[in-house]
Amino acid sequence: MLWSGWGDPAKARELPPQLRELLHDLLGVREPAAPAASFASVRLAPVALSPARLAAVAEVVGHEHVLTSRAARIGHTRGKSTPDLLRMRAGDGSDAPDAVVLPGSHDEVAALLRLCTAERIAVVPFGGGTSVVGGLAAARSGFAGVVALDLARLDRLVSVDAESMVVTVEPGLRAPEAERLLERHGLTLGHFPQSFEYATLGGFAAARSSGQASAGYGRFDDMVVGLTVATPSGDLSLGRAPKSAAGPDLRQLLLGSEGAFGVITALRLRVRRVPQRRVYEGWRFGSFREGTAALRVLAQEGPLPTVLRLSDETETMIGLARPDAIGGGDSGCLVIAGYEGAAASEGSPASSATSVEGRGAGAGAVLARMGGVPLGIEPGQAWEHGRFSAPYLRDSLLAVGATVETVETAGFWSALPRLYDAVRLALLGALESPLVMCHISHVYETGASLYFTVVTAQKGDPVEQWERAKEAVNAAIVAAGGTISHHHGVGRDHREAYAAELGPVGVDILRAVKSRLDPAGILNPGILIP
Amino acid sequence: MLWSGWGDPAKARELPPQLRELLHDLLGVREPAAPAASFASVRLAPVALSPARLAAVAEVVGHEHVLTSRAARIGHTRGKSTPDLLRMRAGDGSDAPDAVVLPGSHDEVAALLRLCTAERIAVVPFGGGTSVVGGLAAARSGFAGVVALDLARLDRLVSVDAESMVVTVEPGLRAPEAERLLERHGLTLGHFPQSFEYATLGGFAAARSSGQASAGYGRFDDMVVGLTVATPSGDLSLGRAPKSAAGPDLRQLLLGSEGAFGVITALRLRVRRVPQRRVYEGWRFGSFREGTAALRVLAQEGPLPTVLRLSDETETMIGLARPDAIGGGDSGCLVIAGYEGAAASEGSPASSATSVEGRGAGAGAVLARMGGVPLGIEPGQAWEHGRFSAPYLRDSLLAVGATVETVETAGFWSALPRLYDAVRLALLGALESPLVMCHISHVYETGASLYFTVVTAQKGDPVEQWERAKEAVNAAIVAAGGTISHHHGVGRDHREAYAAELGPVGVDILRAVKSRLDPAGILNPGILIP
Repeated sequence: MLWSGWGDPAKARELPPQLRELLHDLLGVREPAAPAASFASVRLAPVALSPARLAAVAEVVGHEHVLTSRAARIGHTRGKSTPDLLRMRAGDGSDAPDAVVLPGSHDEVAALLRLCTAERIAVVPFGGGTSVVGGLAAARSGFAGVVALDLARLDRLVSVDAESMVVTVEPGLRAPEAERLLERHGLTLGHFPQSFEYATLGGFAAARSSGQASAGYGRFDDMVVGLTVATPSGDLSLGRAPKSAAGPDLRQLLLGSEGAFGVITALRLRVRRVPQRRVYEGWRFGSFREGTAALRVLAQEGPLPTVLRLSDETETMIGLARPDAIGGGDSGCLVIAGYEGAAASEGSPASSATSVEGRGAGAGAVLARMGGVPLGIEPGQAWEHGRFSAPYLRDSLLAVGATVETVETAGFWSALPRLYDAVRLALLGALESPLVMCHISHVYETGASLYFTVVTAQKGDPVEQWERAKEAVNAAIVAAGGTISHHHGVGRDHREAYAAELGPVGVDILRAVKSRLDPAGILNPGILIP
Repeated sequence: MLWSGWGDPAKARELPPQLRELLHDLLGVREPAAPAASFASVRLAPVALSPARLAAVAEVVGHEHVLTSRAARIGHTRGKSTPDLLRMRAGDGSDAPDAVVLPGSHDEVAALLRLCTAERIAVVPFGGGTSVVGGLAAARSGFAGVVALDLARLDRLVSVDAESMVVTVEPGLRAPEAERLLERHGLTLGHFPQSFEYATLGGFAAARSSGQASAGYGRFDDMVVGLTVATPSGDLSLGRAPKSAAGPDLRQLLLGSEGAFGVITALRLRVRRVPQRRVYEGWRFGSFREGTAALRVLAQEGPLPTVLRLSDETETMIGLARPDAIGGGDSGCLVIAGYEGAAASEGSPASSATSVEGRGAGAGAVLARMGGVPLGIEPGQAWEHGRFSAPYLRDSLLAVGATVETVETAGFWSALPRLYDAVRLALLGALESPLVMCHISHVYETGASLYFTVVTAQKGDPVEQWERAKEAVNAAIVAAGGTISHHHGVGRDHREAYAAELGPVGVDILRAVKSRLDPAGILNPGILIP
């Protein structure tokens, strides 16, 4: 992973000429005054942890699994939000951990937490490092030092229960490797968020990730049927059945806990069979309002596609739903509807209800009835081809002097128009003539997510510029009754808004759990808990 | 509701002659020595609350809403488990509350909780009074008295958001009245547990109820998208979107909290359209193993019926799945598969994927492929007709000297055979030649519930007799890795087993939340929290 950007540098993306023109002429984007910092010039504080403390840590995990090199520390600094990248491009390594620690087992994780509690060392659980909400920038004040607890060595597919369609995995397993391992068993998680290429399964759970095929496969929290968690106060093992009436569902208290309550050391996950067929199609609607109504009917009456997204007029015009054809978009609002599953078998009534063809025909009839015009599979293929490329594109935009960032929320269907307007107005008010695009990419019977992409010319300190806009957006989401995050999480960036969303009694619950599980407060301090 | 039994005394059920013979000849059931206590002979302690305390309570809710009559107190004593009924039939009113309090608003509930905290009065939130796990028998020790907080006056359908398919309701609304109110809008919850005729929506949420049509409509906790809760420490308002990545899902911490954390004063619930068609069919499988495999394939590959249940060989033979024909059952294992939804419309591809006919044909093909023999709609109609009658039948069995009770659990598919054997063996070991029947009535992709009905001749003190058996079953479920309850809840009866299931750190989490929300411990003391 590129230290100052996204992914494999070899996959860097050139900006399409139309987009360059648009940036220059419409948004007033100009080359940044200063070039990006080199790796060698990143400012890094000396390691704050004493040799004795480092030795104690090494005693738990082995000397070769405690890293204090520049590369290790810079590679574990913050996450991949735009402000994170802007800070790195400015050579600011101030949030770097003092050391990176790689435990090799649940017991080593548990021992580390006990040691760090005794020594007041802050611990930042680290999976793929893809947080976009400041979830890895722990507070340092009051601690002897900060270690990144990298789960990379806990990367096994532990067992496969094909009868229950449940697999046990370790948290550091990366999503692409998980899919490769599962495919040998004919299985898939079907979880493909934009962070897919780098993110880990433990991170998906800790941050309540939601993938591009969530309509068909569910959110990641839907897939988690069991969790093993190491906390400074002992171990938790949760999930004896798919569902239970034995009290509160504590799995749902650990999911989304972002490393603040404990470290997930094993997950039991519901899996599906690898689909025999995948078909992604495009549809056009006259307006975002009409398209939203169509998605709502599909979510409420079915049949639900596996992938379902709707771009608003601006995103469709810019062509952001098709990163390969960016700048060459079209009028109206583009819907991508994808179907994955079993192929229809000749004359089988079962297959008509569940097959790709049967569901595609059914959903297509709904989309047509609601005013959609079919565009065939070409837009679907374009979407599929570019589905993980937006973060690469961001690096190119940052390099030419544009700030690009995403914000997202969710609400009930009847609240979406208000929420959509509120976020747009906040961005338009806080930034100078930005380009604001939006899509719906996760639908439920009762509501949906809204995902905004904003592009603006960098002005002054681009981090401060964005922080002002972000503050306005957060306030707008809270006021409009949406949730502060549908799938990015809370981290540091949403903590205040999260407190407003929960209310004081909700905040008290989190603090009570936190102080019971992590009495010294070493776990990801400053993250999540208001 | 009959004070010493179930439901409307006018609906009392005569035992079919075959069943009387079976009880007498096979199980050795004999008339009980003593007749059941009369209402007048129930032993009730004097009201422990001082007149000053009662006056303070009355100041909050109005004098006419504080009841201390025998009828009110006996009518709010314990729930409807078999030991509860046996105790009432023995004239034991020892768990009666001192008073029944009926608040008329959220603010009155909140004020009551503050008052009871200050005065150390235990509060038992009371909905339909249908708990079967001792969820209403609060501990009295250390308190000035106990009040039942009956939510009957909070019984409105507050609002309908037809676009989001979300309704806001008050917790004391009973299920049949809710369905009547919703039907005017063409809507339904689709939640039909066996307690349907008496239970309240708040109780469904507080105890994580699951209905007979859960395969199609989901569990009740799936339907809850928002909750307002009054706690002694202040109010909670949760749920701004169907799903969120804003931290842990605190809704899932309040669901299943059984009145120990707070009192639910409003719920936002996902609703569905009233189905145009309902079809329930019977199928026969050669064995429970074969039938289980068929249910598993339907749960994992679809299409999933709305109602799906499988009786084991004994339950099928006794005919318990068809209470109207009890004692006249059949060989093999009976499956009831029901389909509710839109009727197929001529030539519409959408309807083939989602219609009753399309799903019925699809699921039927799977059942046939897995070895099922179709029995047509007659067994389905018989099941539908008797679906709420089992609790009435229990009263008749208790009267003739038989103990009948149910126990239930859930687990992953691969664990079900072990769990099935463990529970059966525990019951067979703890009771003298009991009749043990089982069915699966709730299925998930990764597992299912097991629901056992046991009938045995009363011997000695029937409460003690059952408590020994229950202890053996609880231990067996914990040892076999199942959850201690799929849909009955924890209450008092499962509290110890629940502690074993959660482990000490899980228990600590509950205690931390409890002491933060309810520092004086007035809410349902002795219930849920180990």
